[in-house]
Amino acid sequence: MVQYSAALDRSFAALSDPTRRAILLRLGRSEASISELADGVEMTLTGLKKHVRVLEEAGLVTTRKVGRVRRCRLGPRRLEDVAKWIGSYRNLLEARLDHLEDFLNHSRGSS
Amino acid sequence: MVQYSAALDRSFAALSDPTRRAILLRLGRSEASISELADGVEMTLTGLKKHVRVLEEAGLVTTRKVGRVRRCRLGPRRLEDVAKWIGSYRNLLEARLDHLEDFLNHSRGSS
Repeated sequence: MVQYSAALDRSFAALSDPTRRAILLRLGRSEASISELADGVEMTLTGLKKHVRVLEEAGLVTTRKVGRVRRCRLGPRRLEDVAKWIGSYRNLLEARLDHLEDFLNHSRGSS
Repeated sequence: MVQYSAALDRSFAALSDPTRRAILLRLGRSEASISELADGVEMTLTGLKKHVRVLEEAGLVTTRKVGRVRRCRLGPRRLEDVAKWIGSYRNLLEARLDHLEDFLNHSRGSS
């Protein structure tokens, strides 16, 4: 349970930066080298590598060295846990809204 | 666009802590005072207040003073943007998987 929660913490923290979200969307299309990821991003390669490392530590990206080039692609984790948490939370809010609606309908019915 | 992204950054960052996620789930059931939120959480009131402030800054929680008690409830933001981002990302991955499947089926058909 603690392990699950720590993984969820890392996923949410990894997603809290626009550059890291852009990297995930880019790698969702195809794998890419660090230099290809840097195309069109106003950031040093060093800065970009740091973001890739955060994504790698969260299991969202994996990298491998091919000659002198580091290739990046999506990792084993595909935000299933994040999607599940958000889904549960929104279901909770909807259930509460339904409950409120029932209450209002009942109040109207009995007035 | 930048404003939207900053709000999304704050939402994801707010969700990257298990105590803050627990507070949201608790307030999803009903509003509560800071002391009520502290029930069953191994944390000082000061620590808890800091987490509530992060959630408040992200628009996920609002608080108001009633006499000497600070009441907390869910704020105007209901993680719509977070759910939307996660949904788009997972659709992208699924589309890519479908594309791969089509490719494999086509390869089999033509072999």
